[in-house]
Amino acid sequence: VDAMNSMAYSSRDTARAASIYDMMLRDTDCGVVLCLAGSLISAGLQKVIIDLVRNNMVDAIVSTGANIVDQDFFEALGFNHYIAGDEYKYGAGDADLREMAIDRIYDTFIDEDELRICDETIHQITNSLEHRPYSSREFIREMGAYLVKEGKTPKDGGRDSIVLAAYEKNVPIFCPAFSDCSAGFGLVAHQHARQGKPMVSIDTAKDFYELTQLKIANPTTGLLMIGGGVPKNFAQDIVVAADVLGVEASMHKYAIQITVADARDGALSGSTLKEASSWGKVDLTYEQMVYSEATMALPLIAGYAFHKNAQAARK
Amino acid sequence: VDAMNSMAYSSRDTARAASIYDMMLRDTDCGVVLCLAGSLISAGLQKVIIDLVRNNMVDAIVSTGANIVDQDFFEALGFNHYIAGDEYKYGAGDADLREMAIDRIYDTFIDEDELRICDETIHQITNSLEHRPYSSREFIREMGAYLVKEGKTPKDGGRDSIVLAAYEKNVPIFCPAFSDCSAGFGLVAHQHARQGKPMVSIDTAKDFYELTQLKIANPTTGLLMIGGGVPKNFAQDIVVAADVLGVEASMHKYAIQITVADARDGALSGSTLKEASSWGKVDLTYEQMVYSEATMALPLIAGYAFHKNAQAARK
Amino acid sequence: VDAMNSMAYSSRDTARAASIYDMMLRDTDCGVVLCLAGSLISAGLQKVIIDLVRNNMVDAIVSTGANIVDQDFFEALGFNHYIAGDEYKYGAGDADLREMAIDRIYDTFIDEDELRICDETIHQITNSLEHRPYSSREFIREMGAYLVKEGKTPKDGGRDSIVLAAYEKNVPIFCPAFSDCSAGFGLVAHQHARQGKPMVSIDTAKDFYELTQLKIANPTTGLLMIGGGVPKNFAQDIVVAADVLGVEASMHKYAIQITVADARDGALSGSTLKEASSWGKVDLTYEQMVYSEATMALPLIAGYAFHKNAQAARK
Amino acid sequence: VDAMNSMAYSSRDTARAASIYDMMLRDTDCGVVLCLAGSLISAGLQKVIIDLVRNNMVDAIVSTGANIVDQDFFEALGFNHYIAGDEYKYGAGDADLREMAIDRIYDTFIDEDELRICDETIHQITNSLEHRPYSSREFIREMGAYLVKEGKTPKDGGRDSIVLAAYEKNVPIFCPAFSDCSAGFGLVAHQHARQGKPMVSIDTAKDFYELTQLKIANPTTGLLMIGGGVPKNFAQDIVVAADVLGVEASMHKYAIQITVADARDGALSGSTLKEASSWGKVDLTYEQMVYSEATMALPLIAGYAFHKNAQAARK
Ligand SMILES: NC(=O)c1ccc[n+]([C@@H]2O[C@H](COP(=O)([O-])OP(=O)(O)OC[C@H]3O[C@@H](n4cnc5c(N)ncnc54)[C@H](O)[C@@H]3O)[C@@H](O)[C@H]2O)c1
Ligand SMILES: NC(=O)c1ccc[n+]([C@@H]2O[C@H](COP(=O)([O-])OP(=O)(O)OC[C@H]3O[C@@H](n4cnc5c(N)ncnc54)[C@H](O)[C@@H]3O)[C@@H](O)[C@H]2O)c1
Repeated sequence: VDAMNSMAYSSRDTARAASIYDMMLRDTDCGVVLCLAGSLISAGLQKVIIDLVRNNMVDAIVSTGANIVDQDFFEALGFNHYIAGDEYKYGAGDADLREMAIDRIYDTFIDEDELRICDETIHQITNSLEHRPYSSREFIREMGAYLVKEGKTPKDGGRDSIVLAAYEKNVPIFCPAFSDCSAGFGLVAHQHARQGKPMVSIDTAKDFYELTQLKIANPTTGLLMIGGGVPKNFAQDIVVAADVLGVEASMHKYAIQITVADARDGALSGSTLKEASSWGKVDLTYEQMVYSEATMALPLIAGYAFHKNAQAARK
Repeated sequence: VDAMNSMAYSSRDTARAASIYDMMLRDTDCGVVLCLAGSLISAGLQKVIIDLVRNNMVDAIVSTGANIVDQDFFEALGFNHYIAGDEYKYGAGDADLREMAIDRIYDTFIDEDELRICDETIHQITNSLEHRPYSSREFIREMGAYLVKEGKTPKDGGRDSIVLAAYEKNVPIFCPAFSDCSAGFGLVAHQHARQGKPMVSIDTAKDFYELTQLKIANPTTGLLMIGGGVPKNFAQDIVVAADVLGVEASMHKYAIQITVADARDGALSGSTLKEASSWGKVDLTYEQMVYSEATMALPLIAGYAFHKNAQAARK
Repeated sequence: VDAMNSMAYSSRDTARAASIYDMMLRDTDCGVVLCLAGSLISAGLQKVIIDLVRNNMVDAIVSTGANIVDQDFFEALGFNHYIAGDEYKYGAGDADLREMAIDRIYDTFIDEDELRICDETIHQITNSLEHRPYSSREFIREMGAYLVKEGKTPKDGGRDSIVLAAYEKNVPIFCPAFSDCSAGFGLVAHQHARQGKPMVSIDTAKDFYELTQLKIANPTTGLLMIGGGVPKNFAQDIVVAADVLGVEASMHKYAIQITVADARDGALSGSTLKEASSWGKVDLTYEQMVYSEATMALPLIAGYAFHKNAQAARK
Repeated sequence: VDAMNSMAYSSRDTARAASIYDMMLRDTDCGVVLCLAGSLISAGLQKVIIDLVRNNMVDAIVSTGANIVDQDFFEALGFNHYIAGDEYKYGAGDADLREMAIDRIYDTFIDEDELRICDETIHQITNSLEHRPYSSREFIREMGAYLVKEGKTPKDGGRDSIVLAAYEKNVPIFCPAFSDCSAGFGLVAHQHARQGKPMVSIDTAKDFYELTQLKIANPTTGLLMIGGGVPKNFAQDIVVAADVLGVEASMHKYAIQITVADARDGALSGSTLKEASSWGKVDLTYEQMVYSEATMALPLIAGYAFHKNAQAARK
């Protein structure tokens, strides 16, 4: 990574991002928020992210539902993602896959029946809860508790997962669009059955309120964003939300985004961190966009900070 | 558009998409769902979308909060988006903009103080509501009612808006990540003040349940998707949700997506509609990806169907 | 197009590019250079470009060989490009196509045997020439002469083509990498047969020298670039070449590029026109990048200038 | 790299490409052609490429002129590329750079006066040559000889370079659009001075003829392509050229392309290797597209093969 510093383009950006992440971790005042969009767990980034959680290298996670429920929790239940043959990448076999109940994520396969078990597990967890609005964070903690209770942990012969590691390390996980994934199916089944009666609901406003408290509780904050989408915007917005609550909160002091999107369509995912600074969300000094597919760049950035032992001072 | 048919690449895709949209409208059994991601209203697509709503060319909308609240409702309140000078596009002036409380979306400016008034309006609407969980659809209807009540309508000298048109035409609007926009600030302020006491919450699971009902109520369905993100996935998923509720629902029969994203990062936004068919969500016969920035392609596709008067048979 | 001015992103860029092209044409001191990269003719842009040539809207063309030889001259010989079924786009049928001697360009088919006739025609033209170094411009003029001689012109029942129109209107066409296309096969066959003996050669330095003369002969110059690659760099560089020859030449006063490439890989194609201005090649006042696939944007830009009758004053 | 195999997207593609490159090198019948487009040397990839040449890991190079002349030969003359501050990336300082005669390549700076010395050196080399058509390969060998003669070699205290390494290892370098770079300026100056008299010319057809001989001389061939553009097409086309010369040549057996371009605009740079197989240029069995910026992927692929010592069997 140090050698990449004297190169150009994405290499140099990766090197600079790695050193910003290193700084973020050494700043003991700093709350580190990891944002996850895209299909990262199915792509093999689960282990890197578990390592970040278990080594105190992240204080909160904001994610799409797919990464946390359909992919991480799904693997925690004992299911797998499969490598698809190259010939499937562009859809040539999708009609056949449909017949065989195999779901495709670009170059990766999933067994649809296993995914239905995952939906159904969420349904059961939902049914077991008190009937009231939950933040996604609260709900995901219940998913962690379920894994422990059911012995889906490494020490009981199960697999490690982000949901479990975050549960054990007390790292909150937020999915602001929580119904937009496997969890949604379980929740819809629950609400359908409860029609009219008291039921579990998922309050996305409560998510925002809770994450804002985290902003308020930390003197400084830093964002490590993989992909864009809702998690990026959500985590950036807590600066403004703190302000709305009358708290003088600083902008995110550190910000890194790994993405392949670009700024030219005006969408949030590709908008630069400089643009975010015009909104008063991100400080200009330590920000870095890394234009790279995440499986290439994240292991380098996380590995760099880890090997420099940046996490030593934390907790 | 007909001439584009004999060209290649994005032109041919646009022509094919236009004819699929035309078919969708002529199929009177078909419920048409419009999905909106990105910053489309600030980019000038508001009028096209209002026209679709007012001419019965869409039956439901699934959107990011930004398009509906920060941009459409914001304009409905009388505020504007401004054209930024070319030199601002890549962030050279962002520190100055920050000082002047001007927010930038790529090549467009917003007055941050006006946006705060928008947040505050949401806060007031929230305070006026009964304390219970709402779907975003219910909440957005209240926003429409607010516009009518406050005389923010063309016949009272105000401006037309998507929220208003959808209110008047009874077209439901869903924002599955509703707190991830200007609305979130108003909601957080409300919940902060109500601490412990009964309050308004936004139930994202209810959104999913309601949209699934729409799938169930229509013999066939079609998707016109601008950008990807949460709206795309949410609208596709209702096929599976109907199935979870025990209803034998057909796949989306028609599907169009306009996007600049591509399939290679495995993320949902760029995943092809063929990939969605492996999940049993979208039928293979009438699907078309259009790889183009939306301001180029949407006016062509909408205009084509409109001029062919495809909407005549509907409602 | 005027309406696009008040939109954002690619629409606004297209509108601005159209008005710069309009200015370029009204500036009677200005030599207009059209640059063509990518597979534009097979994609259906031949007619637009012929119209530009026949209406005095371009003074010189710099192109890749593929557009001029494999595609335009190929069609001039009476051959066609065919629309490929959607299922071929991503390579699912390429092994079969190979068997059937069908060549694929993304979503378009070509009959390989017809292409071999095109190669062979170039071989014959080469054999008919005096044995000396030619610029590609000289050679392409001979191709135009061949079309006239063989009756491959509209008035003899043939088709119009860029090579023919440019021949008749005296618009020079340069292909700086001339052997990198169908022409290369004819030339290699010629040189192989002539081994040791005097032969035709293609002097790429002469191309550069001749195009530089054109820069020197015009008080101002403007570039309309479709795609990037060698044509973009070649046409930009003549400013520096004029300087090397001791002539005080002005930078290109107007410059438009339509491309989907972006700046982040540091390559020439996506490099911004601002970057070119650091090299002293392009002036900063009237330059516009249009991030769009060419079949979407070129007809709009060319059509705008044409309907404003910007070309009236020229020649 | 082996761990990347079990990941997805670009990581898995990189791992597969690395193993194909490894196979290519172990196949002692195989002639390996390295293709270079974009600005790779200025980006810091010079050392990796020198290592490939010096370790017998490449048999021929096809490149854009910029990489070989403006960047590699330029550094061989003792000049440098400088890291530009982040604020320059998007053109905010280009007017100032122009004043200071600093040329920018995205995030890298070049001293324009030093580049002019490079142009002038080419001019002198040209003047020293016999007056006849040269292939770019012959000319670039003269550049290598010049470096040796002038003591611009490591053992004389100079720097190593691709031009020098290729000269010493007898690896031919081809630039099919040779005038489209710094070399062009020297050649134009020469031809201007020689007006009418015998002169040096650069025969791009001869390039094609010579490279085709290389195809014919090797039982099998493999391509390692960095970026697309002219080098990619040129190297692929020699299969067809051999056929035109009546030689039964096999398709390229191995093919790797690292690029950020995509297939959707129909241009050559982003066209898939499967598409090339429809043209009969590339075999389908061992081909891999790697969608990544080159500074990220090339060191991994080259390093993998090197550490597996795949080159041991060669030469
Ligand atoms: N965009 C904003 O300015 C903004 C502002 C406030 C809040 N937000 C919030 O951020 C979250 C994510 O927003 P998003 O929708 O911008 O996410 P996004 O950037 O992930 O966009 C989704 C996809 O749509 C495609 N797309 C977007 N605009 C396009 C265009 N003009 N042409 C073609 N394709 C296009 C993109 O390729 C992208 O893949 C939402 O919750 C939203 O409410 C966004
Ligand atoms: N690039 C320069 O700064 C420069 C300078 C002088 C002359 N030129 C000349 O311009 C012409 C075209 O140059 P070009 O090669 O830059 O053309 P180009 O921009 O068309 O590049 C070709 C392709 O390679 C891919 N590519 C380039 N760099 C990449 C990277 N870092 N990672 C992944 N993919 C990458 C791109 O996607 C592109 O599609 C040549 O004749 C060259 O000599 C270029």
